[in-house]
Amino acid sequence: MEIICIGNELLIGKILNTNAQWIARRATSLGVIVKRITVVSDDVDEIASAVKEAVQRGSRFIITTGGLGPTFDDKTLEGIAKALNRELKLNEKALKMIKEKYESYFKAGKIEEAEMASYRAKMAMLPEGAEPLPNPVGTAPGVLINTMSSILIALPGFPHEMEAIFESSIVPLLKKESKGLTFYGASLNVNGIMESTLAPLLEITMRDNPHVYIKSYPRSEKGEPHIEVYLSTIAENSEIAKSRLGRAAIQLSELVKEKGGRARASGSSKTYSSP
Amino acid sequence: MEIICIGNELLIGKILNTNAQWIARRATSLGVIVKRITVVSDDVDEIASAVKEAVQRGSRFIITTGGLGPTFDDKTLEGIAKALNRELKLNEKALKMIKEKYESYFKAGKIEEAEMASYRAKMAMLPEGAEPLPNPVGTAPGVLINTMSSILIALPGFPHEMEAIFESSIVPLLKKESKGLTFYGASLNVNGIMESTLAPLLEITMRDNPHVYIKSYPRSEKGEPHIEVYLSTIAENSEIAKSRLGRAAIQLSELVKEKGGRARASGSSKTYSSP
Repeated sequence: MEIICIGNELLIGKILNTNAQWIARRATSLGVIVKRITVVSDDVDEIASAVKEAVQRGSRFIITTGGLGPTFDDKTLEGIAKALNRELKLNEKALKMIKEKYESYFKAGKIEEAEMASYRAKMAMLPEGAEPLPNPVGTAPGVLINTMSSILIALPGFPHEMEAIFESSIVPLLKKESKGLTFYGASLNVNGIMESTLAPLLEITMRDNPHVYIKSYPRSEKGEPHIEVYLSTIAENSEIAKSRLGRAAIQLSELVKEKGGRARASGSSKTYSSP
Repeated sequence: MEIICIGNELLIGKILNTNAQWIARRATSLGVIVKRITVVSDDVDEIASAVKEAVQRGSRFIITTGGLGPTFDDKTLEGIAKALNRELKLNEKALKMIKEKYESYFKAGKIEEAEMASYRAKMAMLPEGAEPLPNPVGTAPGVLINTMSSILIALPGFPHEMEAIFESSIVPLLKKESKGLTFYGASLNVNGIMESTLAPLLEITMRDNPHVYIKSYPRSEKGEPHIEVYLSTIAENSEIAKSRLGRAAIQLSELVKEKGGRARASGSSKTYSSP
């Protein structure tokens, strides 16, 4: 999977990219590997380049966030259309979804007019062949496009809308793709030895446990050394995962002990969980 | 500028990419535009591809974060060397910096041995022609490489080390590049009209204020509509910026009023500031 986040607010550092983290964490927990995250501005050519590059790299899933709203700077669908060489056309299904939203807002007294001004209809202009995805909590529908090699999905930038469409329309697709594989992670806290002493021990443990990915996160090199070691695996079920992670954790703990350090699993309730 | 963040922990959603936001905000405040942020894994080929692509796009500054430490999964310099077709060689200046750090930790009783094990020396293996940048608060030096068109800078992933090297070695380069231009931003809170009603008013204001970039961030479409409008400009000094932003803000406020909405500047002390 690749994630493409669209929005100048990310490139000027106005906001943190919490959407990328949320999608990465959720996809990983379902056993789907995220290979790249790209952030580009609200510019048709920049969006088109980023999408085209991801398609060319052959990603099975490409998920974009942001730029689906009614204003002039919402350019995601124009960028995608350009990348795929497709026309933007009024999608009747999307138009119906949006109309029903505005009518319900009008009936509830939340807006003053229910008609579809051109700015509202803009959200129904989708690349040819696209499928709108219902937005349970907002106005702009998500958009799904099948290309030869990829499934391209455009989601809104508002976290609660993005998450709602992801859960209802994307999670089932990812589950099907990963065939029930799931990600499992566990942390080991290592104290009393330095990162450079730990490095060869990690290499031995990785070599002996080829299905376990290990990465170290040193917290301090100057005070008392403290290193978080994160072990993870993608497995068919939690039994297999637990046995793999447990075996690697025990081997590493013993190696650390031999070098005079201490290793302990962090919070058992969180031991085998999503990132 | 382009920012490339290296680390599996970002791609599994284990941590938020606060480094990207920090660099984006700081560079923007100095008048340097960030065009793209890319996140890739701790994999030599992935790093090399991302760096090569950024160089080919002709970015003046390319800043990487992460992957400079002593462990096997710190592969940033290997990736950069591959992208630039350069050899990794022991850099004497970098070696001296690292040696002095470990000696000082040893003298302070913080580590048990001062010698340069191969894992420590790994941090001094730089691409040919690279310049090490002093790390005031940690061990791994930053790395600066001049290519034909770009200045490539590799920074550690620990936020406090990354920020310290950025402030001491990168800020002076960016200031020189932007020739004293500075970024100024101001927010306008718009209430009582919907995003789709505001959209044409933003277009008029942008058309009449070509040096001001305007973007709207709707907060709610279902309750009382509330939209933050963010105006920004890059200018020689704050007088020019204030007059540009003030003129655009007044015009937009009047247009909003005509449509029955309200617009007010948010917190005057923060009116003309960095993102």
